[in-house]
Order: sequence, then structure tokens, then C-alpha cells
Amino acid sequence: MVKQERAVRTRRAVLEAAAQVMGVRGYEAATMAEIIQQAGVTKGALYFHFSSKHALARAVIMEQTQPFEQKVTASRLQDAIDFTHQVAVALRDDPLLQAGTRIALETTFSEEPLVPYHAWIDIITKMFSDAQDNGELLPGVSPEGAAEFFVASYFGVQLFSMAASNRTDLPERVTVLWKHTLPGLATAGALSHLEPRGSEERAAV
Amino acid sequence: MVKQERAVRTRRAVLEAAAQVMGVRGYEAATMAEIIQQAGVTKGALYFHFSSKHALARAVIMEQTQPFEQKVTASRLQDAIDFTHQVAVALRDDPLLQAGTRIALETTFSEEPLVPYHAWIDIITKMFSDAQDNGELLPGVSPEGAAEFFVASYFGVQLFSMAASNRTDLPERVTVLWKHTLPGLATAGALSHLEPRGSEERAAV
Repeated sequence: MVKQERAVRTRRAVLEAAAQVMGVRGYEAATMAEIIQQAGVTKGALYFHFSSKHALARAVIMEQTQPFEQKVTASRLQDAIDFTHQVAVALRDDPLLQAGTRIALETTFSEEPLVPYHAWIDIITKMFSDAQDNGELLPGVSPEGAAEFFVASYFGVQLFSMAASNRTDLPERVTVLWKHTLPGLATAGALSHLEPRGSEERAAV
Repeated sequence: MVKQERAVRTRRAVLEAAAQVMGVRGYEAATMAEIIQQAGVTKGALYFHFSSKHALARAVIMEQTQPFEQKVTASRLQDAIDFTHQVAVALRDDPLLQAGTRIALETTFSEEPLVPYHAWIDIITKMFSDAQDNGELLPGVSPEGAAEFFVASYFGVQLFSMAASNRTDLPERVTVLWKHTLPGLATAGALSHLEPRGSEERAAV
């Protein structure tokens, strides 16, 4: 048990060090030696958990969705909105999450692209699917198709925000994204109850 | 005049060679020597037009919007739809246009990002603004804000399509993008006349 806990802690330290080094230096330029040094683990310990830099980068991307709370309230569309705002604030402020986008972009043209879409699409599909069961979605909207579109669109919006403001304006841009997409997703009844803004913007009014 | 024509032709040859080399090898890996060889021009001729690789990449990106016909019909929203479908087919099929996306992605994290957003936003803003004058836009929609959102979202959708299908499915994904965003843009009257599909999809039915 103690041994297992130590393994979990080592794995976490390596993942955080990898995200940090790859976030600053880029995926290509980052070396396993730097990551080992940053994590304060032995080479053996790192390779016990991850067989290659590619495997490590893959784990960084796959585990990005984990820190976010996925609450379940009466409105699953509102849950989706709140979730994406949580992610926006983290993308703006948290170097570990930013590293994932950098790895995704850098490997897009490589032999083995590492794209973080699927983990996010699964979460949003579940929320949209529940929203459909609750009668919040317009007829004819496919939860999975809408989630795929939404995640692709969100990825573009956060890239644009990075170019425009180093992601300072990302929460506001996520609000605009919802304002533009909710009319094609939600019934009129649901729409009238939804709040597209995140908690920061609401507090600022 | 003959001299000027030759200069225009040289400039075009250099731009095409640059897009080709950078599209295949990437912006960082591409060298001026390769571009000179590919273009079949002298080093002096290239540097007469472009002072650096960065300046050359910038020109590749700025001139990407030029080959597209921007028609003006009674429905400026339909013009915007048709325009984005033209671009989707070119992004799928034309290596020169694909090079621009690659340069944009590769330089996103560099000191001098080269992002192709502005040229596209200007075109879409003009179309949405005319649509507003025609009474096609919903009240409260800002043509410029909507164009910024749309271009960011489109960039995300084409990246997603590249990861999912090497852009084979991009025209269908652009249709989905419009289906999801038109209800937040167009009046009910305009909406009933709009065709979100591109000409290929319409012909396939």
C-alpha cells in the first residue's frame, strides 16, 4: 500500500515535470534528462512509468481533464457552460494545462499527432446527452456531433485568444462562443434560463 | 512595364516555392536555400522581394485570401457560407493554402507569431456587416465580434478535421459549423432561405 502510494506520487511528479518542461521548451526540444531533473526522480523510476517521451506527452494530454469538477445540476447545458469556463480560467492561468495545447499543436504535423480532443469530447457528449434526456436540446441536435463541433470550435477560440491576448480574454471569448452556439442547441425554454457567462464575469457586473 | 511584369512573376514564384517548402518541411526546418532552388530564382532576386524567412512566411499568410472569389448576391450570409466552403475545399486540396496553417501553428509559440486571422476576419466582417444592412442579422449581433468568433471557430474546426481525416471531411464539418451558428446569427426569415451546405454536398444529394 505504501509502495503503491509512492508509485502514484512519483507518476504525478513526473507528469507535472513533463508538462512544465514541455510547456516552456516545447515537445521537440524537451529532453527526458531535463524532465528527470525537474521531477527529482531517478531515470529508472521515470522509465518504470513511461517508456518514451511520446508516452509521457500522451499521458500529460490524457490526464488534463482530471482536475475539473463536473457537477450535475438540473440543467446539464448550464453544467457544460460552467465546465468550459472552469477550463478557460485554467487555460489562462495554469502552465500545466497550457502545456497540453502546446504539445497538441507541435505534434499536429508529426507522424504521431497527440490531440487532446477525445477526452474533452467524451465529457461534453455526456452533458449534451443528459441535456437531451432533460428536454433542453432542440430536436435534431445530435449530442455527439454537437460535442465534436463544440470542442473543435473551443480549441480554435482558445488559440485565437492566445494570439490576441495571451489568453487574458479567454473567459469573455468563451461567453461569446456560448452566445453564438446556444441558439442552435437549446430549446427556447431552456435558453431563457441559461447564463453563458462564467463566475468571474458575473461577479464583475 | 516588362521589367515590372517580370518582378511580379518572380515574387509569385518565390511565394509559391516558399509555401511548398514550408508546407512540407515546416517553417523552422525550411531554408532560404531550398526555397531559392525550388523557385528557380537567384538569391539576389529573392532578397530583393523578401528580406528574411519571416518576411516571406508573412507574405505567404497575408496573400492566402487572394485566390478566392468574393461574390456579392442578395444574401450576404449565403455569400459568407459559399466563401467558407470554397476555402474548405482549397484547404483540403491545395498544398499552398495548407502551408499557411502549418506556419501559423508552428509560429504560435514563437517570439513573432504569424497568424492568418486578420485577413479572413476582414472579409467575413464585411459580409456580416452587409448582411446587417440587408436585415439578415439578428438584432444585437455585432458583425465584427461575430466574424472574430466565426474565424476562430473555423480555425479550430479545420484543425480538428486535419486530425480526424487529414481534412477529407472538412466540407461536411463546415456545414455543421454553419448549422450550429446560423441560428445565433440570422433572423428567422433569412434562416429559412439559407443553404449551409457547399456545392459538392448539394450535388451529392
